Amino acid sequence: MLNFDYEIPTKILFGKDKIKQLGSEIKKYANRILLLYGGGSIKKIGLYDDVIKILKENSIEFQELGGVQPNPRITVVREGIRLCREHQLSFILAVGGGSVLDTAKAIAAGFYYQGDAWDFYLRKASVKKALPIGTILTLAATGSEMNGNSVINDEATESKLAIGSLLLYPKFSILDPVYTFSLPPEQTAAGVVDIMSHIFEQYFSPETGTAVQDRLSEALLKVCIQYGPIALREPTNYEARANILWAGSLALNGLLLYGKTGDWSTHNMEHELSAIYDLTHGVGLALLTPFWMEYVLSEKTVEKFVDFAQNVWGIVSNDKFVAAHQAIDKTREFFKSIGMPATLREVGIDDQRLEVMSNKAVRFGALGNFKQLNSGDVLQIFKNAL
Amino acid sequence: MLNFDYEIPTKILFGKDKIKQLGSEIKKYANRILLLYGGGSIKKIGLYDDVIKILKENSIEFQELGGVQPNPRITVVREGIRLCREHQLSFILAVGGGSVLDTAKAIAAGFYYQGDAWDFYLRKASVKKALPIGTILTLAATGSEMNGNSVINDEATESKLAIGSLLLYPKFSILDPVYTFSLPPEQTAAGVVDIMSHIFEQYFSPETGTAVQDRLSEALLKVCIQYGPIALREPTNYEARANILWAGSLALNGLLLYGKTGDWSTHNMEHELSAIYDLTHGVGLALLTPFWMEYVLSEKTVEKFVDFAQNVWGIVSNDKFVAAHQAIDKTREFFKSIGMPATLREVGIDDQRLEVMSNKAVRFGALGNFKQLNSGDVLQIFKNAL
Repeated sequence: MLNFDYEIPTKILFGKDKIKQLGSEIKKYANRILLLYGGGSIKKIGLYDDVIKILKENSIEFQELGGVQPNPRITVVREGIRLCREHQLSFILAVGGGSVLDTAKAIAAGFYYQGDAWDFYLRKASVKKALPIGTILTLAATGSEMNGNSVINDEATESKLAIGSLLLYPKFSILDPVYTFSLPPEQTAAGVVDIMSHIFEQYFSPETGTAVQDRLSEALLKVCIQYGPIALREPTNYEARANILWAGSLALNGLLLYGKTGDWSTHNMEHELSAIYDLTHGVGLALLTPFWMEYVLSEKTVEKFVDFAQNVWGIVSNDKFVAAHQAIDKTREFFKSIGMPATLREVGIDDQRLEVMSNKAVRFGALGNFKQLNSGDVLQIFKNAL
Repeated sequence: MLNFDYEIPTKILFGKDKIKQLGSEIKKYANRILLLYGGGSIKKIGLYDDVIKILKENSIEFQELGGVQPNPRITVVREGIRLCREHQLSFILAVGGGSVLDTAKAIAAGFYYQGDAWDFYLRKASVKKALPIGTILTLAATGSEMNGNSVINDEATESKLAIGSLLLYPKFSILDPVYTFSLPPEQTAAGVVDIMSHIFEQYFSPETGTAVQDRLSEALLKVCIQYGPIALREPTNYEARANILWAGSLALNGLLLYGKTGDWSTHNMEHELSAIYDLTHGVGLALLTPFWMEYVLSEKTVEKFVDFAQNVWGIVSNDKFVAAHQAIDKTREFFKSIGMPATLREVGIDDQRLEVMSNKAVRFGALGNFKQLNSGDVLQIFKNAL
């Protein structure tokens, strides 16, 4: 186990009607805020009206910035920074899924930075100070509600890049499973895949002797596998929604990674797909993951797959590689069973830009730690996934 | 799943040589501190000298209070409060196991209270303000390094009582597995039992639909079962010590309990034993736990035991009660295998004071939530355990 500093400063308000605590939580930090949200879904479910009512009741002044889209744009970030500066707003309330939350973090960091916020993502600048943010989550997926990560797109350069900072952890996040009841099936499924992929990225690690982290990872994978199909069959099943929602936060708040090195190859490869093809992140992850697993499986890595097979899928075999392959097949079948595509062609991606994406994927160096991948490896995985 | 507010403000500095961060962490809070510790073990392993050196290098003034014993006394708490007030100390550094940490919390809370600190434990007063504390842990067991709980003894009334407050979470805790290398086997084993008992108290809960918490609990139980025997055979095995140490903190920092109701019957019953007989807490828990399990097993509770049997011990049976009893037997065997006694008589406790203890155990009302126990139930469990 590697040394680590554990620090998760986000307060989570979890459960039905937890929005009641919104006013008092915001007022610990500010009276003038930016209200950031995405499309129309928060209006449809009544959440928008509830938020406005609470802000008014608590005499919290606000400016609105709506329309944040999936694969969020740096242009919206710049607009948010401008609004905060112009109206002297000192807190950001993000209402929505990971895209809205990630945008809020970019605005929070950019507010105090004299240059362009995209510099953080290009690793030309690091976050030194940030506005406090709070979130109300409407989609279990990215884990952004309980971490300091932010992923943003620059359309101009077709780039999707990530940053992380302890300064960007939300001060509080409200997680009410009821807000996820009306999600369309494909978003529910893609969210479950995203959560599982976060776990995989940390589970498949070069470190050994990390039983705590590994058993906890397997525990959360089992929760996703148990409740994903239930949430699809019964969208208003509170138990299923609650377990997926909480698993999503714990999957990427640091708990599974402290003491280990993550891999993140699949995430980085997927970012290249969705930067160009505007694919739903979880969909890209679902189709790439089994191909990544097959590619990195070797004599050196097989033991981890044996654990995965036995502890997650209940597969036991005398032949380690048989167990490993069965576990990978089970993973692929599970993703298919919740409606995910299994190849690039199924989502309309052909071989035209695979090489471009492979080269962009390694712009900051080789990918991965469980097994390092250069651009040739990435290209091969893309080709296998066609 | 019940609603909950998740908030774990403690920073954990985990790993070899993490003590290097001690000076800078303390100086965030104070320059005049109380240094609290137990017996001679921290001097034997060189930790005491390291701490003194770091305090002097960082110009941190300190008063010492050593000699805190297992089942810590309220008398030491009073002495600590006096020292803090007399010397205007504004931070407590607790170096040792759970007893030292729990004492530090009692001093921290008592410092700002005009009455006697024992009032908190008698539920005559609640903690409104507390001194900040930091800890260096030398024993994996109580989880006190990452929670707001404190258990203290009053010798005068033979009482051992607990309090909990968000204000009493340590600001930071240094967890270096190397400090646990020299623990005597009985302390290592009793610590593992204590950790497992904390998990049981939260796992065996009346709530259903808490898969996240339940799978995480099973994960940590498996870690204890895997590494407990290794730590006993190879006391300097870093991997074993690290996994047990981290499991111990996660077992009682709230993670397993958010969204559920804990039971705590076994802990409360054990406190009566150790208040009178000065038994090691983990030893009392080891012998009581299987008897508690057998007593509460019923048609109503059997499903949880089936999960326990399958997910922790790999036991599958068509007959639920067969599976449950096998799992309880496995638990008892495991405790025996790490040197724990299995009956009260083995630790020199006869039937003379069972009734007194049963009545004291329910002084604040019936015990437990998984199954409620009145004094008659407690007495029966004690008798079964003779």
